[in-house]
Amino acid sequence: MPNDWLPSLITSTRQDSYAPPVLLSRMAVKLIQSDAAFREKLRSEYEVDADALIAVPHVAATQFSTIAATNNYWRNIQ
Amino acid sequence: MPNDWLPSLITSTRQDSYAPPVLLSRMAVKLIQSDAAFREKLRSEYEVDADALIAVPHVAATQFSTIAATNNYWRNIQ
Amino acid sequence: MPNDWLPSLITSTRQDSYAPPVLLSRMAVKLIQSDAAFREKLRSEYEVDADALIAVPHVAATQFSTIAATNNYWRNIQ
Amino acid sequence: MPNDWLPSLITSTRQDSYAPPVLLSRMAVKLIQSDAAFREKLRSEYEVDADALIAVPHVAATQFSTIAATNNYWRNIQ
Amino acid sequence: MPNDWLPSLITSTRQDSYAPPVLLSRMAVKLIQSDAAFREKLRSEYEVDADALIAVPHVAATQFSTIAATNNYWRNIQ
Amino acid sequence: MPNDWLPSLITSTRQDSYAPPVLLSRMAVKLIQSDAAFREKLRSEYEVDADALIAVPHVAATQFSTIAATNNYWRNIQ
Repeated sequence: MPNDWLPSLITSTRQDSYAPPVLLSRMAVKLIQSDAAFREKLRSEYEVDADALIAVPHVAATQFSTIAATNNYWRNIQ
Repeated sequence: MPNDWLPSLITSTRQDSYAPPVLLSRMAVKLIQSDAAFREKLRSEYEVDADALIAVPHVAATQFSTIAATNNYWRNIQ
Repeated sequence: MPNDWLPSLITSTRQDSYAPPVLLSRMAVKLIQSDAAFREKLRSEYEVDADALIAVPHVAATQFSTIAATNNYWRNIQ
Repeated sequence: MPNDWLPSLITSTRQDSYAPPVLLSRMAVKLIQSDAAFREKLRSEYEVDADALIAVPHVAATQFSTIAATNNYWRNIQ
Repeated sequence: MPNDWLPSLITSTRQDSYAPPVLLSRMAVKLIQSDAAFREKLRSEYEVDADALIAVPHVAATQFSTIAATNNYWRNIQ
Repeated sequence: MPNDWLPSLITSTRQDSYAPPVLLSRMAVKLIQSDAAFREKLRSEYEVDADALIAVPHVAATQFSTIAATNNYWRNIQ
């Protein structure tokens, strides 16, 4: 695992807020499945699965909550 | 991904509070399934699935919690 | 979607605390299934499903947490 | 729904902390299945289901978190 | 239910932090399945189930969050 | 269970933030399945399961939220 895989959770725009969650989720996935080719195969399964299309935003919502708190909800950004 | 896809999380009315979660969830879905036609097909599956009709509000509840905190629970709005 | 579908999250009694979550969940369901007759049909499925009877209170618990925080946990109400 | 179904979330002991979540979950279940005999039948299903024995404590954990915050984590109770 | 089943949520070490969640989860399970022999049988099912080995830590993570907040994240403990 | 299994939740870098969640999850798993060989077998099942690759990051997201709060979101770390 590289030492600098996770950049700051502070993001300059709301639009960037999904970058840390995506990185965090990918790292969690790598921790249980280290084979990139296999991860790609599994991805091809869940990207066509209706349940997964609900489950993935649930994980994103949980991570987004943390990132939003980190950034004080971007209240000072118009 | 457009630079301005996520408008402010601050909403002027409680009724608008679902707009950011809907945008956030759609973006999460797009990140795993970029094909719009395919997303439409999957949507046609889960909109007739009883489990999905419980799972989707669960995701919405998680996002709503973040948006409500952002807006200090709209305590100052009658 | 009517402009005034979501009344204040501030409730005068604890007993009223479930009204906003119920409204929020119904609106989330409507966003994915706009056909009322179809929603009724799906409801008839999950109201006889043991898993759903656990999943629905889970969603309610998540929403209740937000409403309770909004109301400062009704600490000033006997 | 009786007007006084939900007593105070403030509990005098930690041991009482599960009473409000149990009440809240039962009320959520009643909102989707109003037939008591049917609820009893569904209960007889999930009380022998290993998945349910994990899912129910998950709901309880979510509710407990709210009740614990309400009571300032019973920090002043030995 | 004994009156003193739940000891303080304040723990002197981080290592003890799992004791309250384990007690809380066991109590939740007992509330839905009071027969100890039956609980043991169900346990023998989920302890060999891969999904359960993910679901149980999810419940533990939710409870741990509450216990960590209770203890101010053990920030003063080296 | 060793007395010192859980090191400080305070981490010096964001990159280290996944170490405590991984430890916490492993301990939760050990509490329900004490046989290491069996845990390895179950792991070989879920590491090739698309649903598990979504469920595991969900658990990690919940734990990460606690660790991030513990560390005041690493706001003082560049």
